[in-house]
Amino acid sequence: MRAGIVGYYSTQFGELWERSLFDLVEESIWGVIKKSKIDLKQIDAIFFGNMLGGIIENNLHAGAKIAEIMNTHIPVFHTEAACASGGMAFHLAHNYIMSGKGKTVLVIGAEKMNDSSPEQITEGLMSAASGEEQECGLTFPGLYALMAREYLSTYHYTKKHLAAISVKNHAHALNNPTAQFHKTITEEMVLQSPLVADPLGVLDSSPISDGASSLIISSDPSFLNKSKKAEIFSSEIATDSISLMKRKSIIGIEATQIAAKKAFEKSKLKPRDIQVAEVHDCFSIAELMAMEDIGFWKKGEAGKRAGDYETLYGNGGSLIVNTSGGLKAAGHPVGATGIKQIGELYLQLTHQAKKRQVKNARYGLAQNVGGSGGTAIVTILGV
Amino acid sequence: MRAGIVGYYSTQFGELWERSLFDLVEESIWGVIKKSKIDLKQIDAIFFGNMLGGIIENNLHAGAKIAEIMNTHIPVFHTEAACASGGMAFHLAHNYIMSGKGKTVLVIGAEKMNDSSPEQITEGLMSAASGEEQECGLTFPGLYALMAREYLSTYHYTKKHLAAISVKNHAHALNNPTAQFHKTITEEMVLQSPLVADPLGVLDSSPISDGASSLIISSDPSFLNKSKKAEIFSSEIATDSISLMKRKSIIGIEATQIAAKKAFEKSKLKPRDIQVAEVHDCFSIAELMAMEDIGFWKKGEAGKRAGDYETLYGNGGSLIVNTSGGLKAAGHPVGATGIKQIGELYLQLTHQAKKRQVKNARYGLAQNVGGSGGTAIVTILGV
Repeated sequence: MRAGIVGYYSTQFGELWERSLFDLVEESIWGVIKKSKIDLKQIDAIFFGNMLGGIIENNLHAGAKIAEIMNTHIPVFHTEAACASGGMAFHLAHNYIMSGKGKTVLVIGAEKMNDSSPEQITEGLMSAASGEEQECGLTFPGLYALMAREYLSTYHYTKKHLAAISVKNHAHALNNPTAQFHKTITEEMVLQSPLVADPLGVLDSSPISDGASSLIISSDPSFLNKSKKAEIFSSEIATDSISLMKRKSIIGIEATQIAAKKAFEKSKLKPRDIQVAEVHDCFSIAELMAMEDIGFWKKGEAGKRAGDYETLYGNGGSLIVNTSGGLKAAGHPVGATGIKQIGELYLQLTHQAKKRQVKNARYGLAQNVGGSGGTAIVTILGV
Repeated sequence: MRAGIVGYYSTQFGELWERSLFDLVEESIWGVIKKSKIDLKQIDAIFFGNMLGGIIENNLHAGAKIAEIMNTHIPVFHTEAACASGGMAFHLAHNYIMSGKGKTVLVIGAEKMNDSSPEQITEGLMSAASGEEQECGLTFPGLYALMAREYLSTYHYTKKHLAAISVKNHAHALNNPTAQFHKTITEEMVLQSPLVADPLGVLDSSPISDGASSLIISSDPSFLNKSKKAEIFSSEIATDSISLMKRKSIIGIEATQIAAKKAFEKSKLKPRDIQVAEVHDCFSIAELMAMEDIGFWKKGEAGKRAGDYETLYGNGGSLIVNTSGGLKAAGHPVGATGIKQIGELYLQLTHQAKKRQVKNARYGLAQNVGGSGGTAIVTILGV
C-alpha cells in the first residue's frame, strides 16, 4: 500500500446556529487526531476545502487560521472548486503524499451556511456558475431542473423515478448518527413537496447545512500497519465548461464520465467491482445521472433501476449507494461533502459503519461534483 | 533537471478599468502558451491563484471558467492563501509534477481589484486577518505599521530607512514595461506622502492593482531541452498564527524564516549564492524584515543596508532585490504577485530581462507572503 486513509471524523451536519465555521473545523481536527491516535507532530501538511467562507463571512486565509488553532507552522493549503472543494482538497493531499513531500496529511472539508439569509446563500452558491447564468436569474435548482427535464423526456420517466432517490437516501440516513435528517419520507411526500424548479421539489433537493469532516491520509508504514485502513487506488479530476449551454449534452455530466473512466483505469477495477458508492445527489436527478456517468448503469437505465430501489440498503443489491444518506439526507455543507463521502467509504471498507454496514464491502467509489458539473472528482478506495 | 520553468507571460499591471478578471486570465493564458511555443494538448493540469474573486465579484469555481476559456477537460485547481495565493499555486503545481501526476503544468495568478470601492477592497483584504483584528478596526497598513514601529524603535532607525525601499523599487520599475508605475520618486516624496498608518505613508504602500501572470512548468525533456529554462531547486511553505498578538515576535515574520531555511537546505545553497531576489514589499517595512528573515542580512542590519541602497540595480551590489519594481512599483494584484515574482526571476536567470538584466544572475529567490505573515512561500531557482 502506497497511501491509505487511517482515520476519519465528522461533526454533526445540520443547522448548527450556535457554532462558527472554525468551531466546526476545530472539532473535526481534534476529533480525527484522537480517532487516529496520531501525534500532532506527525502531520506534515494540511489541505482544507471550503467554498463560501470568503463570500459569506469575509473569512479567507484559512491556512493561517488553522495554523493558529493547531499551534503549528506546517503548510496549510486552501482549495476551492465550489461543491467539489472537499474532493479537490483530498485529491491534492493524496498527490502531496505521492510526491514524497510528506508522509502524513490531514484533510479537512468544512462549510458554515446557516448564518446567512437565503438570498445570500443562493447568490453565494451561484458564484460557482457562469456570469450569463447568474445574470439571467438561473439558480442551481434551475440548472439541475433543466437537466432533469431533458433526462425525463428523453427516456420517458416521471417525477416518481426521481423521488425514489430521496426516499432511499432518507432511509439510509436513519442509521447515520451525524446526518442532518433522521426522518422517513415516502415517494408521495416528495411528489407533493413544494416545487423549487419544476420538476424538482423541496424533497428532491439537498439542504443548506453546516458541518466539517476530516481525514488522515498516510504513507507511513507505522500508521498503515497498526491502523484500520483503506487504500487509495485512484483519485481523478476532470473539468467542463462552466455554462450548461456550452456542453455537448446536458443529459449527464461529461466531467464525471472522464474522471470515472480514468479512475477505473488507474485502479484496474470495473464498475461491477464496487460494493459501496457515495455519489453527489445535490438534487435527485444528479444521482440518476451519476449512476450512468460512472458506468454503474447504462444510459437511460437509471430511472428504472432507481425506481426499483436496487441500491437501497437491505434490498439485496450488489451495490449500495449513499449509505451516509447522501447530500439529500446527511446534509450538504459544501466544502465538507467530498470529505464526508470518502469518510463514509472508509467506515464501510474498514467495517466500522455499524447499523449501515454493507457486509461484503471491499471496494468503494466516491463522486464529488462542483457546480452544475464544471468539476468532477472520482475516488476509488479498497481494502 | 527534474522540473523547470519554460515560459512566462504577464499582462500589464495597473488600474485596468475596462478589463475583467477573466479578460486578464485569458490574456495571460494565451500569452504564455504562445511564448512557450507549447501546444494546448501538452498541458496536463492548471493551477490558479486568486484571492478576492469570490468576495468582490461573487466569482468562484474558476476551474470550470478556465476550462471553458481553454475548451479543455483537464484538472484545474484554485488555491487561496491571501496575498500568497500565487506562490501557493506555484508550490502545488511544482509538487504535481514531482508526484509524476503530470509533466507540464500551467500556473496562473490573477486579481481584479479596481472595480470595487476602497471600503470593499479594504474589507475584502481584511478577510486574510483574524476575526479579532477585523473587529478592532485594524487594516493591513495598521498591522504592518505595528511591525514597523517595533522594528524602527528596537534598532533605532527612522522613516528615512523605510523610504529608501520605495525609492529603489520605483527606480527598478522604470525598466519593467508591465509595471503599474513608471515614475521616479525621492526619499523626500515618500516622507511627505500622506500617512496611512504611522509610520507608513502612501508611498510606503503597494497599490490596488489589476493583473494576471502565467508560467509554464515542465519535467518533459522535449521542452526542457529546447527552451530557455530555469530549474526549480526548492519551493517551501510555512504558516504562523493569523493574529499578530499570538506571535513570538513582530519584528520579522517567522513563517518566512522557516520557509527560507528549508528552501536553502533543499537547494543546498546559501543566501550569499543568490544574485536576484523578489521579496514581498507590500509595505516598505516588509522588505526590510524579509531581507533579515531570509538570511540575506543579519538582524537589525536591514535599515542601514537599505538606506545605503545596497540592492539597487547598478549600484555595484552582489544581490539586486525587486528588479520588477516589487509590489510597491510593479503593482500588487494579489493573486498574480507570487507568479510575477517567480516570472521575474525566470527572465533574469534566462537573460531575457533586457534593460534591467542583472549580468551575472545565476540563482534567484522569491518570497511571497499571505496577510501579515500567516503564510510564507520561498522559492529558489537556478540555471
